[in-house]
Amino acid sequence: MFFEGSEKRVEVFVSPSTAPLRLLGNKFWADVVASANAEIISTMSNDFCDAYLLSESCLFVWDDRFLMLTCGTTTLVDAVILFTEKLGRATIASASYQRKSEYLSHLQTSCFTNDVLRLRKSLAGAAYRIGHLDTHHHYIFTADSIQSGGVIQSNRELMMYHIKGAIADYLRSDKQSCQGIRDILALERVFANFTFDDHLFDPCGYSINGLCGDKYMTIHITPQEESSYVSIETNANFKCCPFSALLNKLQPQSWDVIGFNGTITTDDFPPYRLVASCALPLNGKDRVQFNQYQQLTSEVLLPERL
Amino acid sequence: MFFEGSEKRVEVFVSPSTAPLRLLGNKFWADVVASANAEIISTMSNDFCDAYLLSESCLFVWDDRFLMLTCGTTTLVDAVILFTEKLGRATIASASYQRKSEYLSHLQTSCFTNDVLRLRKSLAGAAYRIGHLDTHHHYIFTADSIQSGGVIQSNRELMMYHIKGAIADYLRSDKQSCQGIRDILALERVFANFTFDDHLFDPCGYSINGLCGDKYMTIHITPQEESSYVSIETNANFKCCPFSALLNKLQPQSWDVIGFNGTITTDDFPPYRLVASCALPLNGKDRVQFNQYQQLTSEVLLPERL
Repeated sequence: MFFEGSEKRVEVFVSPSTAPLRLLGNKFWADVVASANAEIISTMSNDFCDAYLLSESCLFVWDDRFLMLTCGTTTLVDAVILFTEKLGRATIASASYQRKSEYLSHLQTSCFTNDVLRLRKSLAGAAYRIGHLDTHHHYIFTADSIQSGGVIQSNRELMMYHIKGAIADYLRSDKQSCQGIRDILALERVFANFTFDDHLFDPCGYSINGLCGDKYMTIHITPQEESSYVSIETNANFKCCPFSALLNKLQPQSWDVIGFNGTITTDDFPPYRLVASCALPLNGKDRVQFNQYQQLTSEVLLPERL
Repeated sequence: MFFEGSEKRVEVFVSPSTAPLRLLGNKFWADVVASANAEIISTMSNDFCDAYLLSESCLFVWDDRFLMLTCGTTTLVDAVILFTEKLGRATIASASYQRKSEYLSHLQTSCFTNDVLRLRKSLAGAAYRIGHLDTHHHYIFTADSIQSGGVIQSNRELMMYHIKGAIADYLRSDKQSCQGIRDILALERVFANFTFDDHLFDPCGYSINGLCGDKYMTIHITPQEESSYVSIETNANFKCCPFSALLNKLQPQSWDVIGFNGTITTDDFPPYRLVASCALPLNGKDRVQFNQYQQLTSEVLLPERL
């Protein structure tokens, strides 16, 4: 029942002179997705963005950039390399490639260090690890800018580990449905005015993309006991933080927040301890913030019989 | 400079009718050690025990049992299998095989699950993971008893992660020496009446075995920044806990204590948070306790450039 929910993530901006990425068409993006060993299972669009649900996470394509997350044992670095080959290095204004700590990294087909070796054949750039190897950590590669433009938007990612309680139980049950999950997580209330596209995997697991103008949100749920993981990413700004709503519902044992170019607010978070934090300037334009949180209560561990 | 300090550990008791293990001789034990891809670099003995310093950790041989720890990318499971083949399954009264979480598990040649698959070809037994996969965790396999006797002694292991301060700096410096480390850690005072055998590795790293009657101690230091790890194990009972002395000197960011068949005392520990704990009964005779601790202060992370 093990599934590696942790996503690899890439965001690429193209130079202003590049033809709109959305005009590249479904076939182009299907090839990019396939190169990472994933496939497109659903698509929705608005005036700004084409949003794809993937067999492993998601892809958002705007005219000037794309954002792709893939989980499991996918090889997202292959998609970055294929895109760079197809459009040419000169079109790329900025690019960031990230990996998070994985539950079972030895099951992956590549490690971040090897991914960066391959990326650097076409993209010069800086690579970092934030956080210790024996706990949550985050790898980030950012290509050196050779084009103007392409500043990463302000966005936030929340990664939740070891969810528990009634809603976690529901997400592991055979009673769940897409609408049931939207309701129990109050997604249509928290993300009012968003249009959604979601998918329930068999036997469990849930992905949802949402669009509202130029704002996006995406949530991916890997509910399996012993390796549960839920992520949300959005560039929407809210008066009420959607992260605190999810934290209170899903009661994770620990969680991390990664933010690009903005501050991280913890209003209405459940009681927590800030274990560690880091503010890292990138490429002179962007800044990434990494905060690692834990529940305050000491946990009584249940051994897993192997 | 990366080195995986985390040790695999095996303890095997033989049945009372088995010839004393110490009579098997140096060649026998050198073969056992070599099968795990390690080698003997030094030996000392007293009336009870032969203690071997290894290129990767240590081996202690008593007449009725042996204890072996190996770090790096050694394959300790091969040593267990070789020993079982040479002496025969029927001689084994009890056996426990353990692995800890590793900094870079994808660099290992095997995972615990595969090790257990191999062990179970000759030794039936129960296997557990204690602790979450995204933080410190501990794997333990215990063979089902087919012989009487062989109760694991009361012992304690302390694993320290991310040491810092003046003594950590000394352990990374080119000024260190065996006697210098004994002095700075006050080992000859804390372990009064013990006889020691120690070795300084190049360019850094330190191992020491100690014997005092039927009591043993062993310390292994991997001081490398970004992946520092120091372990101590002993079956000695002290009024003043040697663990607190080391914790206060080495100031680790986090530490775990594993204890077999006894209570874990935290007297004089530096201020800490108990993150998680577990008491696990084994095979009807033994009990293992796993406690995971963290410093109280929130850490400002320094990104590592890759």
